[in-house]
This record gives sequence, structure tokens and C-alpha cells, in this order.
Amino acid sequence: MNDTFLKACRGEQTDYTPVWFMRQAGRYLPQYQAVRGKVSFLELCKSPELCTEVTLQPIEILGFDAAILFSDILIPMEAMGLVLEFHEGRGPVFPEPVRSQAAVDRLRVPDPEESMPFVLETIRLLRRELSVPLIGFSGAPFTLATYLIEGGSSKVFLETKKMMFQAPELYHALLEKITACTSTYLQAQARAGAQALQLFDSWAGILAPQDYARFALPYVRSIIRDLRAMTDVPIIYFANNGSTLLPHTTTAGADVLGLDWRINIGDAIRQVGDHAVQGNLDPIALFLPRQELEERVRGLLEDARQARGHIFNLGHGIVPQTPPEQARIVVDAVHRFSRR
Amino acid sequence: MNDTFLKACRGEQTDYTPVWFMRQAGRYLPQYQAVRGKVSFLELCKSPELCTEVTLQPIEILGFDAAILFSDILIPMEAMGLVLEFHEGRGPVFPEPVRSQAAVDRLRVPDPEESMPFVLETIRLLRRELSVPLIGFSGAPFTLATYLIEGGSSKVFLETKKMMFQAPELYHALLEKITACTSTYLQAQARAGAQALQLFDSWAGILAPQDYARFALPYVRSIIRDLRAMTDVPIIYFANNGSTLLPHTTTAGADVLGLDWRINIGDAIRQVGDHAVQGNLDPIALFLPRQELEERVRGLLEDARQARGHIFNLGHGIVPQTPPEQARIVVDAVHRFSRR
Repeated sequence: MNDTFLKACRGEQTDYTPVWFMRQAGRYLPQYQAVRGKVSFLELCKSPELCTEVTLQPIEILGFDAAILFSDILIPMEAMGLVLEFHEGRGPVFPEPVRSQAAVDRLRVPDPEESMPFVLETIRLLRRELSVPLIGFSGAPFTLATYLIEGGSSKVFLETKKMMFQAPELYHALLEKITACTSTYLQAQARAGAQALQLFDSWAGILAPQDYARFALPYVRSIIRDLRAMTDVPIIYFANNGSTLLPHTTTAGADVLGLDWRINIGDAIRQVGDHAVQGNLDPIALFLPRQELEERVRGLLEDARQARGHIFNLGHGIVPQTPPEQARIVVDAVHRFSRR
Repeated sequence: MNDTFLKACRGEQTDYTPVWFMRQAGRYLPQYQAVRGKVSFLELCKSPELCTEVTLQPIEILGFDAAILFSDILIPMEAMGLVLEFHEGRGPVFPEPVRSQAAVDRLRVPDPEESMPFVLETIRLLRRELSVPLIGFSGAPFTLATYLIEGGSSKVFLETKKMMFQAPELYHALLEKITACTSTYLQAQARAGAQALQLFDSWAGILAPQDYARFALPYVRSIIRDLRAMTDVPIIYFANNGSTLLPHTTTAGADVLGLDWRINIGDAIRQVGDHAVQGNLDPIALFLPRQELEERVRGLLEDARQARGHIFNLGHGIVPQTPPEQARIVVDAVHRFSRR
């Protein structure tokens, strides 16, 4: 069992810097495309066998040091009773956005074993197959709320902020329910065998710091507090585009803070005190010629030297157009340059 | 003549904090919609009379302390010889993206007096009408280049970064030509009577700091250096989503740095040394109830007290759904709370 990733999360000494990529099980891999060609995205998410297969692919093909459960952050939102659709090229859609007390009241806090057994079954199957640690995950409550309130993706998040600003009680009622769902969901993942848990706050970066502190952070804290009471798996919190939020995100209670590529990792490390960090290569830097790509990896490792722990990752998900051999160059370079 | 805005740009003492909004001449005003209903967006941009009319509207209706020329950052790109289309709800489109040396070679560096006389005529007309300073503007070269290379707006800017990373000579050749065009264009605006100039780097924030320093900043510096040689109008540089770029943007040579809403303005001011700052209310904060909106304005003014100069603005353009009376609340609150 390669536990380098878990050690780095805990700030323990490692022989080399572990590496995994956000969306490493994904469309850039022809092997993933082959599976995906046979089923819809939601069907894939709900098949433990296929989820297991695509989760294992990047580990076997590219040699990452951690696997992340293949799923989607919106799966538990469907389990709350909402209709969820994925349209090709348009992203997720909730045809009935949640914008009223009645709509919030209709949401149920699901029992994960009953409503999302396929996720927990995937975790159990994966633990039998994997020789690297398995990361479970969920969306963070604010990010999940934006999809429910907007009815999908958004550019300026007008409806979300209008609810925050004009109907804060409704907003907080919705967030409490999402938080209860997310908390239970992550606890179930830990019980099923997830060895680390990542909270994705993909849209945290659209909030002014004062709004983040009031409308997003408390719910992340609450989830992490509840997790600490039942498990000691490392917890990673990724607030995307969140460099100006670091004074707040460092108080979330996570072991590891994920960083997007917009900040020099050394500058971030000076701000995060006792946390390990995960990141933060620009996903499009994977299109650099080999030598320059290797140089960039080397520079990033060098800048991250003072970290309590460093898990090498991209600053956002790998894009579908990426040639897999470019990902391989990075994995190998991280291992080679960081070996002590 | 109300010169409060110009004084604040120069870091001189003012009686109160001046305020204007990005996109203040725009779709949230019914009076703008009335003009826009009669012509296409590009026709509007090319009519000095109509541009003058819509530029004046927010000054008369809402009492802003500065006017900004109504135009679009892509107008000079069309003048370089490219076909530019605006499709409703889809944003700007260049049907023939610039991705080869031949395409770069075909671009011409236009004489603004010949190819964009309508812009300079608008400036001359406005100077006769206005009782507040007139801001001219252009896009910054990197931001303009993204539209040309992508063929329009983008999410991950794959083509732009691929050119930067895989064909840096081609990229730099393109940027040099855009820079020559932009430089000449801003100089012509100053000669025609613009009393301040703003460079909009709307997409700077998609770059890692090291890439910003190499692929975007040098061209901004070059434009500002050339402007300094022929005019002493204040220069504002707005690198959107650029909080982590501040160590670089402070070296651009601008008098004023624009700030988006993702950073506490006091934190930014501590990083920008001798610069005045412009910003940075979340545009969606305009949907707050009156009292809370006024409190937020008061807090922002308080946080900005240590600035060398502060021009109150939004952290991004005002959105079309904003009720104009909410903008009025902010303008009045800024004037009232900041009066010494």
C-alpha cells in the first residue's frame, strides 16, 4: 500500500511528493471515453462497476499516488429530491430551481445508504482493488447551493446573491439542509472506506471575503467539525479562485488546503501556517513542450519546499483536450525531482 | 468643472470620494435601452451622436463624478482588419480567429483618425457637454489577444495558452501588433480630449503570476511608458480577478489600480504602495436592501481610508438587472459618508 499521499496530508515526512490530478478519471483518457460511450453520464455515476473501472484507469495508466472516487458533486442534490439533468455541452441543469421556502421544505435529507448506495458500493469495491489511498468527496454547501438556486451553472450568480442579500433566512435554511445532507454523505463515505475526504468549493471565489465568511465558511466548518467526531481521515478543502479568502479558509478546520493556479504556491504557503497544501499547476500548462513542462514542475516543487506537506495537483481539473502522455510527464517529473 | 475624480487619481486631497461605475452607460438604464432599441450594438458604437447621448445619461440621471466614453474594447480589433460580430446573448465573435503567422501578418496597425474617427469625434462632442472628467479607455493587449485567438469569449482559454506555451514567437508577434494599435489608439484619445485613460485587462486573472509577468505585463508597461511621453492624464489599470497579481501590476506604471470585489480593499491598499485605488463593491451588492447597502458603502469607504487616493467604483460592470435607484443610493451614500 502506497501511503505517501496520506502522509503528506498529515504533514509527515515522505520519500517523494505524491501527485494526483483533479478530474484524473475523465474525458482526456480514451479508456474513459470507451466506457462513457456506452452509457449516459448519470448512468455511469450510478454504476458501481463502471465507476470502479474509470476510477482505477488513471492509477493504472499514469501512476498517480491517490485515486478519487468517480462521481459528481450534484449526485446528493438529486438524492435530496430534485430533478437533475446533464445536457451535452451545457452542464448540469435543475429544471426547478430552489428559490422559495416551500421548495426548501420539499428537500429531504437523504440517508446515503438508502438513496446513494451505488456511491458507497463503489468505495467498497475500490478499496479491494486499489494499492493507493482512495479520496471520497462532496461539493461544499455554498457551491451546491449555487446550482440549486441558479438552476445550473451561472456567470454572475445573481439569483444566489439576491437570496443571500434579500432573503438571508431562506438562504440559511437552504444551506442548513444542504449541510446536513453533505455531512451525512461524507460520514457515510468514511464508514464505507474512503481514506481521505475532499470538499470542493468550486464557486467560493465569486464571493467578497466578508460574504464568504458569513454565507459559505460556517457550513464548511460545521461539516468538518462533525467529521472530526467520527473519523481521523485527512480532510482537504479546495476553495477555487480563493487566494484572497486564505485568511478565512485557514480557519475551516481542514488538514490540507487546495490551491488554484492563480497564486504562487510559495506565497500561499506563507499564509496557510500549519496546513499542508495541494496544487497548483495551471491545467493548461500541460500543453507546454516537455522540457518546459518539466522545468515548471521543478520550479513548483522548489516553491513548495517550505510547506508542512505538499500534494502535487493541478490548480483545477485536467481539460479533456490534454494528451495523456503530457500527464505522464508531470507524474514522472514530480516523482523524480522530489525524491529525497 | 467637477475635478474631484482627477484629483483622487493623482492622490490629491478631495472634499469627498468620487464615484463612477464600470458599464454605467448600459442596459440597466431604460434611457439606454431606448437608444439601443433603435440600432444594433455596433451601429451604436459607431455613432458619435448616440455614443455621446448614452455616455451623458448616467451623469445626468445618477450624478456620477466621471464619465466613461461609450464604446467597446474590440472596436480597435475590427479596425485592425478583422470581422467582428455581436450575437445577442453570445457575446462577441471573430469568425476568423488569429492563430497563424499569416493571420498576424494580415493585421494592420490602424491610424485611429482614419479608421475610428467616430470614437475621437465622440470624445470631442462629449468634452463640450460634460461637467465631469471624461475617461477614455481600451482593452489591455493580453485581454484583446484572447478574443482574437479564441475567436470570442472562452472558459479555459485553451487556444490562447497553447499559443503562449507552444508558439511563443507567434504569440509575441501578435501581442506587439495589438500593443502598437492600442498605444496609438489611447494616444489619439488623449489628443482628442480624454482626461483620464483606463486599460481594461478583463482576463488577466486567468494567468498564473509567472505567466502574467511574461505574457501580459510587458505590453501594458510599454503602452503606459509611451503615453507618459505625450500626456500627463492619469492612467488607470484594471486587472480583473488580479489580487494575486498585485506584486506585478504595481510595476505597470499606472497612477490608479482598479480592484475587483474579491479582495478587501484595505488589504489591497496595503499592497499597492503609492498608487491610488479604484473599486471595489460587488456589483450584486447593489441588490442589498437600502440600509445594508449604505452600511456596505460606509464600510468600504472606511476600509479605504489609508489609500493614497480612492475612486469608488464597482468591482466589475453593473449588471443589466440592477434597478437604477439602487445605483443612486450608492452614489449618494458615497458622497454623504465621505464628505470631510
